[in-house]
Amino acid sequence: MTDHVARASTWRVVTLDGDTTTRRLDTLAGEEPLQIRAAGPGQEALDIAVTMRTPGHEHELAVGFLVTEGLATPTDIDRWTIGDPATDSRPDDTITVHLRRPLDPATIRERQTVATASCGICGTASIADIARRCEALPDGPRIDPAVLPGLPSALRAAQETFESTGGLHASGLFDPAGRLLLAREDVGRHNALDTLVGAAAIAGDLPLHGTMLLVSGRVSFELVQKAAMAGIPVLVAVGAPTDLAVATAERLGMTLIGFLRGDRCNVYSRPDRLGLAP
Amino acid sequence: MTDHVARASTWRVVTLDGDTTTRRLDTLAGEEPLQIRAAGPGQEALDIAVTMRTPGHEHELAVGFLVTEGLATPTDIDRWTIGDPATDSRPDDTITVHLRRPLDPATIRERQTVATASCGICGTASIADIARRCEALPDGPRIDPAVLPGLPSALRAAQETFESTGGLHASGLFDPAGRLLLAREDVGRHNALDTLVGAAAIAGDLPLHGTMLLVSGRVSFELVQKAAMAGIPVLVAVGAPTDLAVATAERLGMTLIGFLRGDRCNVYSRPDRLGLAP
Repeated sequence: MTDHVARASTWRVVTLDGDTTTRRLDTLAGEEPLQIRAAGPGQEALDIAVTMRTPGHEHELAVGFLVTEGLATPTDIDRWTIGDPATDSRPDDTITVHLRRPLDPATIRERQTVATASCGICGTASIADIARRCEALPDGPRIDPAVLPGLPSALRAAQETFESTGGLHASGLFDPAGRLLLAREDVGRHNALDTLVGAAAIAGDLPLHGTMLLVSGRVSFELVQKAAMAGIPVLVAVGAPTDLAVATAERLGMTLIGFLRGDRCNVYSRPDRLGLAP
Repeated sequence: MTDHVARASTWRVVTLDGDTTTRRLDTLAGEEPLQIRAAGPGQEALDIAVTMRTPGHEHELAVGFLVTEGLATPTDIDRWTIGDPATDSRPDDTITVHLRRPLDPATIRERQTVATASCGICGTASIADIARRCEALPDGPRIDPAVLPGLPSALRAAQETFESTGGLHASGLFDPAGRLLLAREDVGRHNALDTLVGAAAIAGDLPLHGTMLLVSGRVSFELVQKAAMAGIPVLVAVGAPTDLAVATAERLGMTLIGFLRGDRCNVYSRPDRLGLAP
């Protein structure tokens, strides 16, 4: 480990405030690459992805990534090893997830051919394809709209690093009464969700049918896809959704709520879970 | 083209405001995959990346991506073709950039092996490697800190789609006096920057040595890397930088400014371009 691998670092910074200049130490959110690998029984490990992430919870991130990308189910996961003895990489640069069933190298190669410098498309750009890969979401849970305004402050209170750095996205899982069940944060919004789903998968809690998810930022197609793969029927965001995110949520039967600010929000799909007419 | 391919779409939405429920049409930011390909003279096109992006400015995004990822220089670019006659994909799903020099398939394959579900690491995780690939940044320009507070409103005024959707990231290029030279927006922050750099590359304006860049969100390693590949010496953000973004900016000699809010901001590296002691 070098001193860089940290959930947060300090840095000397010059703060300008009008004409006033102050020099002080500031706290920065950590960002480091993680190589995710996977191997079946007796198989050599295959490179799956490299992601820029905030150090910590590596095994949850790797397991969650495999699950939300449809590369493994929770029951496929056997164990994980951190570090790569074959190279001189830092031990927490690489994680290998060992699966109970073989992984098809052709599937991984095909996926990588269309892997992306952007986020999450991961070889499947079509809503129909996502719908095929996801199990159907349940009709419930029923959510009282009055619990929504309290979600962002509950999530912020649980964020370990955000308060000091202002630099992290968060995902929070809630029960229908608005009680926080689990929270994870990361520089990448998709990583925050993957890590949360990985933690739930390791705990044996998937599919997350009786829950709702709050994300700190905007909602892309990718977040809807990943939430659906984890069986989450209600996705709430502080920011705006894209048109593809909304179209995907509608197709998958997910309730998508955006622009949650105070007691105001927009419901884009399946308002019936909030007791509203479709 | 289907009706989905649009910079913005309308969707019927239920707005909750306390106990009041309103049904209205809302405008959503467009999100669609784009397959970026490249080909040398007489070569078959190679798949480079698939990115989720806001439709529009496809040629700028593709050219900017190749340039900021170090896969082509502006003088390598010959022309581009939109659409893929070999498949039944929508014409604006695919863009091929034709280069004046051959592209090495092995380099592209190697890059894809470590391509990422996250953003921008693209096979090069090391700051030293980025430093090797970037030309040195100039000592200038000299920026009067008094111009900084005006940048965000100038960029927001130039955003075509943000005002109606709230869902897009923006990148704005400014001269040292704070005049906006160029602005681009996208659902992905990296795409907004790539599209801006691509527009400048096509106009023959690279390297962008005499400019500063404003980005609407947080600053990851990737944005610093891409700005450096375009020769931009000053990067200003409304949000927080990560520790790796700051360390990379410091190493490359880039001035990195974050948390720009009103006349307050933090300077993380090379404060001398603002007339401040290092």
